[in-house]
Amino acid sequence: MTQDTYINHKIGILAIETYTSHQYVLQSELETHEHVSPGKFTIGLGQKGIALTGDREDINSICLTAVHNLLEKYDIDVTDVGRVEVGTETLVDKSKSTKTVLMDLFPNNTDIEGATIVNACYGGTAALLNAFLWCDSNAYNGKYAIVVAGDIAAYDKGPARPTGGMGAVALLIGRDAPLTIDLRQRVTHASHVWDFYKPDPSKETPVVDGVLSQVCYYQALEDVYTRFCDVMSSGDVFGLKDYGVDTAKDTYFCFHAPYNKLVQKSFGRLCFLDARRRFHSTTAADDEEDDELKPYLTKPLEETYTDKTLEKILKNKSSTMFHEKMKDANYAGQWIGNTYTGSVFFGLASLIDRLGGGDGGDLSVGKSIVMFSYGSGALASMYRLQVRETTTSKHAKFSIPKMSSTLQLTQRLESRQKVAANELDLALNTRAEMHHVGAPYTPVYPTEGRLLPGTYYLKEIDGQWRRFYERISVDADFPVVKEEDVPLAPLSVLEKN
Amino acid sequence: MTQDTYINHKIGILAIETYTSHQYVLQSELETHEHVSPGKFTIGLGQKGIALTGDREDINSICLTAVHNLLEKYDIDVTDVGRVEVGTETLVDKSKSTKTVLMDLFPNNTDIEGATIVNACYGGTAALLNAFLWCDSNAYNGKYAIVVAGDIAAYDKGPARPTGGMGAVALLIGRDAPLTIDLRQRVTHASHVWDFYKPDPSKETPVVDGVLSQVCYYQALEDVYTRFCDVMSSGDVFGLKDYGVDTAKDTYFCFHAPYNKLVQKSFGRLCFLDARRRFHSTTAADDEEDDELKPYLTKPLEETYTDKTLEKILKNKSSTMFHEKMKDANYAGQWIGNTYTGSVFFGLASLIDRLGGGDGGDLSVGKSIVMFSYGSGALASMYRLQVRETTTSKHAKFSIPKMSSTLQLTQRLESRQKVAANELDLALNTRAEMHHVGAPYTPVYPTEGRLLPGTYYLKEIDGQWRRFYERISVDADFPVVKEEDVPLAPLSVLEKN
Repeated sequence: MTQDTYINHKIGILAIETYTSHQYVLQSELETHEHVSPGKFTIGLGQKGIALTGDREDINSICLTAVHNLLEKYDIDVTDVGRVEVGTETLVDKSKSTKTVLMDLFPNNTDIEGATIVNACYGGTAALLNAFLWCDSNAYNGKYAIVVAGDIAAYDKGPARPTGGMGAVALLIGRDAPLTIDLRQRVTHASHVWDFYKPDPSKETPVVDGVLSQVCYYQALEDVYTRFCDVMSSGDVFGLKDYGVDTAKDTYFCFHAPYNKLVQKSFGRLCFLDARRRFHSTTAADDEEDDELKPYLTKPLEETYTDKTLEKILKNKSSTMFHEKMKDANYAGQWIGNTYTGSVFFGLASLIDRLGGGDGGDLSVGKSIVMFSYGSGALASMYRLQVRETTTSKHAKFSIPKMSSTLQLTQRLESRQKVAANELDLALNTRAEMHHVGAPYTPVYPTEGRLLPGTYYLKEIDGQWRRFYERISVDADFPVVKEEDVPLAPLSVLEKN
Repeated sequence: MTQDTYINHKIGILAIETYTSHQYVLQSELETHEHVSPGKFTIGLGQKGIALTGDREDINSICLTAVHNLLEKYDIDVTDVGRVEVGTETLVDKSKSTKTVLMDLFPNNTDIEGATIVNACYGGTAALLNAFLWCDSNAYNGKYAIVVAGDIAAYDKGPARPTGGMGAVALLIGRDAPLTIDLRQRVTHASHVWDFYKPDPSKETPVVDGVLSQVCYYQALEDVYTRFCDVMSSGDVFGLKDYGVDTAKDTYFCFHAPYNKLVQKSFGRLCFLDARRRFHSTTAADDEEDDELKPYLTKPLEETYTDKTLEKILKNKSSTMFHEKMKDANYAGQWIGNTYTGSVFFGLASLIDRLGGGDGGDLSVGKSIVMFSYGSGALASMYRLQVRETTTSKHAKFSIPKMSSTLQLTQRLESRQKVAANELDLALNTRAEMHHVGAPYTPVYPTEGRLLPGTYYLKEIDGQWRRFYERISVDADFPVVKEEDVPLAPLSVLEKN
């Protein structure tokens, strides 16, 4: 079958809002606390901070926060929304979806499609692609779609714990968008693997095969990147011949980031794939690649995944380009940690925040962002977003500079409260106990002075397991940074531990 | 914003396949077993049989079965599939999706979008609408989408237990379909209610507020039906003025069916809404409605939900129409029970099976089916499917008669093995124990002679919680109907109980 003539609705992202907790632990202090060698988390994982939360927040509350703040900051009439979709793997219910809880934000508007999508860290991308499809199809009714992706990434005590984090990102989707996608420029990788999963109902933490997970991430990235390059250079679309990382002018890259070091190594592998393609192309000169990399250009790919020598070569060769094309997207994740479904969108927000400001921002009209989303199990997609100016007067309020100035993400991360490293254990122990106790349950962590203005929090779980939420007033005082020796955990938690 | 000129891709359903277990319990025997008054389940709920399964099947296995059988029966090349999406609320993992497990059915094809959607019984409809959007958008690549919706509906011992069931339905989606949707003819109701949910991680059974659930179902139905009638009679689409149940010529109705009696009562309420609209329309004569219904035509709707007198009036008034328009769609569900996300599609399959056969089938070209899907929490949609003939030679193999002859659903249900009523307790106790024990786990229920040819089953859960499946050969003998005194449960289960 052939496709119909392309109709360009300029669908895409109109606005973006993020939420993460106001408290974080410094990874260097976590190294000391965990008695590991200095640099294990900061250099080994490439991480700087980790966001944490006690028992006052769950997937419903953090999505309520992100979506409500998005609606308020962009002054969106809730009756103008026709679709709301959620991506998460921090489920608190196997049947009732977070999407339905969000309906409390849309009084007098029940005509809102979309549900909750589960596929490890990929759920938000599935939701986003669905929202794009909706805007692009005959089903579109002129209203906005909202996609929210978020998780609380909690690990058992051990090597994976520093790769946790928490947060959510809400996206406003529509036509005539300042950040647009051509739906034909997207490819997907789906496979059945057991790299990371959450099968134990008695816990909220996952089972992880760290080595396999890295290989699966590499393989998915290779699969989508190879086909994405084919799509981009096919001539049918934009005719970008010889497209690839090393020739991608004006392009930034934004990857799902379990931890920053994996992103850096993965970017190196894209450069490796570029080198292999150049080497195998009929027009390339024999001596195009230096001797250092040459032995690897003909090796079967599966033999290269865990090769430490190759890893070093690729790191050196791609280092400058990595910093140019990915540093700003990775900034937020390094300070927050992994937010699972939210991670790739925190990357996007970070890039917009840092490079999209004012008239002179580097993320200007004509620039592109190649997005790579990976969810274990596995499901991954690569697609491209492009910066443009909106043309309708109704959408004049949506632009990259507006997103940047509204996000203030770097500033918000810098103004957070650093807490002692042991607070991570206390918070996660409390969460584990909440999971275990079930219903009824009243959270013990404090709210006032701890949660940001506009933050929703879990007030109680009643005897019928119903969860009730309240919101810190948007006019409340910004939490004052406390002395470090004032613990975040309440006395009842401190006494128990 | 206005919509673009409508482009009719004739997207819709090309093929349908169902799966339910080969064993069932007779509801009349369950009444005796549960010591309730005769007729409580058969007349009170309107149910005839309930499908059951022990510990050999889970959400992954039943979706594998439905999808693999669909692919085989319609001879679909797995590389021709570009999207696979799952709707379910029988999760066995909070992170790894059933979609990824299904990838084992698609060797050498990783370019398959779609994930798993969770929203109580609505997840399959969300998946279906997404697949339609995909086919209708610029993202479409000419391949097929597959949507699979299924659940194992297990309830604690008590009044809700007879409303369980198990099964899955797989749908093949594409353009130029014999059963097509106009995407503009669909409306949705979304709200935040606690009518039915699964918050307790230690169990696979739900928390149910039966009375609230019925009211929520009514309210969602009223909301979508009222707006659906507006859409249908707006003149912008098909100009079907005065559309409604009572004027819907050539139209069948297919509802999500928790139990048949609720569907019947709900259909009565649509007739009630029709009567109210006629009464309030300016052109209606004052004496249009008979005295019996008149007092209710001006009453606030919320005061009518639990009125038993009204219920009886509506049942009598709508009875003939209910049988004409819904009897065949409801047949399968009455014999299987609730399959949650699969329920509304079992209704569709049942209708096709019973009325779509041969040249003279009543479900002929030009006929329509109004679909109503409800998921607690709540999320509901109403949309219309229309029967047509495909026009491309490639799709000549897809038709309603082909679906009917391939399904043979009535025949398959009639050839099932009736087991003793206490087998339901034994199977559900075993499932509860499997849930409790966790990993590793080896299922105890027999497979050979019990599972249908082509059925996937859980072979084991290993120490790392990984689930492994095998399939009964499609050439295996059809399970012979055993004497009733040969129990389905293995000795280890019988001895324990």
